Amino acid sequence: MFRARCLLRALRSCSSAPCPRHRPAARVSVRGALGVQSANGERVKVQGWIRSVRSQKEVLFLHVNDGSSLESLQVVADSSFDSRELAFGSSVEVQGQLVKSPSKKQNVELKAEKIEVVGNCDAKAFPFKYKERHPLEYLRQYPHLRCRTNVLGSVLRVRSEATAAIHSFFKDSGFVHIHTPVITSNDCEGAGELFQVEPSSKIKVPEENFFNIPVFLTVSGQLHLEVMSGAFTQVFTFGPTFRAENSQSRRHLAEFYMVEAEISFLESLQDLMQVMESLFKTTAMTVLSNCPKDVELCHKFIAPGQKDRLEHMLKNNFLIISYTEAVEILKQASQNFTFTPEWGADLHTEHEKYLVKHCGDIPVFVINYPLALKPFYMRENEDGPQHTVAAVDLLVPGIGELFGGSLREERYHFLEQRLARYLDLRRFGSVPHGGFGMGFERYLQCILGIDNIKDVIPFPRFTHSCLL
Amino acid sequence: MFRARCLLRALRSCSSAPCPRHRPAARVSVRGALGVQSANGERVKVQGWIRSVRSQKEVLFLHVNDGSSLESLQVVADSSFDSRELAFGSSVEVQGQLVKSPSKKQNVELKAEKIEVVGNCDAKAFPFKYKERHPLEYLRQYPHLRCRTNVLGSVLRVRSEATAAIHSFFKDSGFVHIHTPVITSNDCEGAGELFQVEPSSKIKVPEENFFNIPVFLTVSGQLHLEVMSGAFTQVFTFGPTFRAENSQSRRHLAEFYMVEAEISFLESLQDLMQVMESLFKTTAMTVLSNCPKDVELCHKFIAPGQKDRLEHMLKNNFLIISYTEAVEILKQASQNFTFTPEWGADLHTEHEKYLVKHCGDIPVFVINYPLALKPFYMRENEDGPQHTVAAVDLLVPGIGELFGGSLREERYHFLEQRLARYLDLRRFGSVPHGGFGMGFERYLQCILGIDNIKDVIPFPRFTHSCLL
Repeated sequence: MFRARCLLRALRSCSSAPCPRHRPAARVSVRGALGVQSANGERVKVQGWIRSVRSQKEVLFLHVNDGSSLESLQVVADSSFDSRELAFGSSVEVQGQLVKSPSKKQNVELKAEKIEVVGNCDAKAFPFKYKERHPLEYLRQYPHLRCRTNVLGSVLRVRSEATAAIHSFFKDSGFVHIHTPVITSNDCEGAGELFQVEPSSKIKVPEENFFNIPVFLTVSGQLHLEVMSGAFTQVFTFGPTFRAENSQSRRHLAEFYMVEAEISFLESLQDLMQVMESLFKTTAMTVLSNCPKDVELCHKFIAPGQKDRLEHMLKNNFLIISYTEAVEILKQASQNFTFTPEWGADLHTEHEKYLVKHCGDIPVFVINYPLALKPFYMRENEDGPQHTVAAVDLLVPGIGELFGGSLREERYHFLEQRLARYLDLRRFGSVPHGGFGMGFERYLQCILGIDNIKDVIPFPRFTHSCLL
Repeated sequence: MFRARCLLRALRSCSSAPCPRHRPAARVSVRGALGVQSANGERVKVQGWIRSVRSQKEVLFLHVNDGSSLESLQVVADSSFDSRELAFGSSVEVQGQLVKSPSKKQNVELKAEKIEVVGNCDAKAFPFKYKERHPLEYLRQYPHLRCRTNVLGSVLRVRSEATAAIHSFFKDSGFVHIHTPVITSNDCEGAGELFQVEPSSKIKVPEENFFNIPVFLTVSGQLHLEVMSGAFTQVFTFGPTFRAENSQSRRHLAEFYMVEAEISFLESLQDLMQVMESLFKTTAMTVLSNCPKDVELCHKFIAPGQKDRLEHMLKNNFLIISYTEAVEILKQASQNFTFTPEWGADLHTEHEKYLVKHCGDIPVFVINYPLALKPFYMRENEDGPQHTVAAVDLLVPGIGELFGGSLREERYHFLEQRLARYLDLRRFGSVPHGGFGMGFERYLQCILGIDNIKDVIPFPRFTHSCLL
């Protein structure tokens, strides 16, 4: 805001008359400079890191990037500038005039009057080479530097935009945001793969006494959201969740982000699926419209074909099939699965991917799973011998399960046999309700077509790896 | 969005002609219903919980609340409705016509055609009594129900609004949002009060091997933000942080939220303080304008006088004094302190509160602390024998320290003696930079005047207490 306002003011006062040299140059981001429509010699100051240097006889071209956009600003300097210190990776402050660029590659360039090297970069020791495209696996070794590459820069800007878009989506829909706790004594899914939390051994308090009970890192904010949906009707959370899963696969992280929502007075899976589909599409459209270049970079160099796949997902209605139909489709498939599809057995990733392909690469909701496969809190469909619950998973191309949700069992007597902990929530004005969770990293993978989950989170944590 | 749009459409089609009875009623939130400017018999469906029942001879008045606002919607039913099930706390669905209310207390009321009890509430077992104002300490015993009270409802709506406002502030100012990790091997402040994280004993992997190194819950995202500010120039994070502090005081939580920002190419504390002050004020103004009734409730019943104090803070410029001046002020104070003020010693809460009072209850920045008091990464002022660093704390009325920040030491040779871990960040295009952290719960306390930190977070965690 400061800088944008600053620039605006500076440009306003500059536009009518040529700027006197002594007026202090307005600080402006690279994004701000590139956005100036008809540059006319405005005096500005740009700060950033050198992405490339090209020296010609009479003139020196620098590309300066400050992370505000994928594109760098071209700086043109005459040969009086000493190019030796102007190395790849160095930080610089450039003052000069914004002018229309003669090249077709950009609208605007910066005619340098003064270039100051703020911090040197030993390009030989710097692990990334100028003009070289490094594999994502290689970049992962440098969690403190990889954000300076084009790809990670774009991914993390998209992540930031998607985060903002998700908050806006829920706010605009009347949801109250809840910070559900990270430390909890509650174990939502009955999953065994928990991290336990204890004061570090340096602390004087006897360890077993800190919270009086064993506590863990949350695996889901659902229980806490259910509490809150009993007061605010529509609530959501968007925070870190944890699994102590012993896996180094490209699908798993020990710490990842989930978007979870809970809605009271919700009586059908249809209504829940509408929110899920709308969240998916609205967020994607916002990201596409706010950082098209960043998305384009991923679609072009990391995941060719993903642009079309994404457009296909966005312009079509998501499909809905029942678990029973899904099993039928799998049984009739010509493909050999590692796990034989069978009614009553869980769907595996191979099944999920087949189903999505079978449905024409459109995201597909699978609904009404066998009760025995799902946690105790899901609402029974009372459909006789089948005995299914009102659960829904959204399967998407390339990823498999992206969302999981359900109607919750609000009926006291149905729950009574199941779990005592839940009962007190159903005694005081119980209402039908439902909710879902979406893996945020998987969502980003789905939008950008990035194969490994470790490349869409700033600092990945997984077995044997907690760098920084 | 769904509901708002729904209502809009419904109201549009209703406004010109009286609605036929058979048209399905549009679902609308209480907030949405109360916002209808000139009600004219629109048929709607409202769902929520009964906050009060008043039975007169011919007519029954219900107040229904769904958490979308502090205010409830008045439902008017004729005496044909059975009032026995319509008890305090029960959830209901009411269909009827929105009409202008004859009472001055509200614009709109709902003339009931159909009232359905969705879930009963055993009012005798419900721990909160109708019309009774319970102390906050009492409410704290019921973390799963206290959100249904007026006060906690208002506090948590304000928390949600403030969260959105903070995200918007940074986005509008060109900052990139970063999810800094919760699990980390890094210990920012050298604080001993850490929580250690290990896979729970059920896991098969030998415990000491999960991450290969001991890992902890984060105490600050600063190091990770510094990494990112080296790529994106301006970054922020807003997430949970942890202290294994053995304290049940009204100032401490084991899990709390921090807003942290880091800005590259920042050369003066002045620029940093401008961002801090602007964040404080912009967020407060947004909250005041988006949920005036919720703020008013706290100011009226919880913290009389806070309204004026807050206005006073918002309309005045924050003050700036140096640590040295602060010590002088404290030395000249007539007040007896538990800790004698002395140059070189830390400021305690009693000192901070005195300083704020001395400055006329305006938030005050204290700058340039002795090097020995602050962590290794703060930038030396090179001011000779005094030996101070460019650190800043913002002290606010009623709370004490709300923000802490500093310029960071970007000079390689200054840091070289200090810590090896930081060095690799300064070798590749190092830039002057600075940042700050703000305790989000303290901020909410400061805005609302709420005395105990446990009352501004949905699920408080502290020594001996991890409920739910």
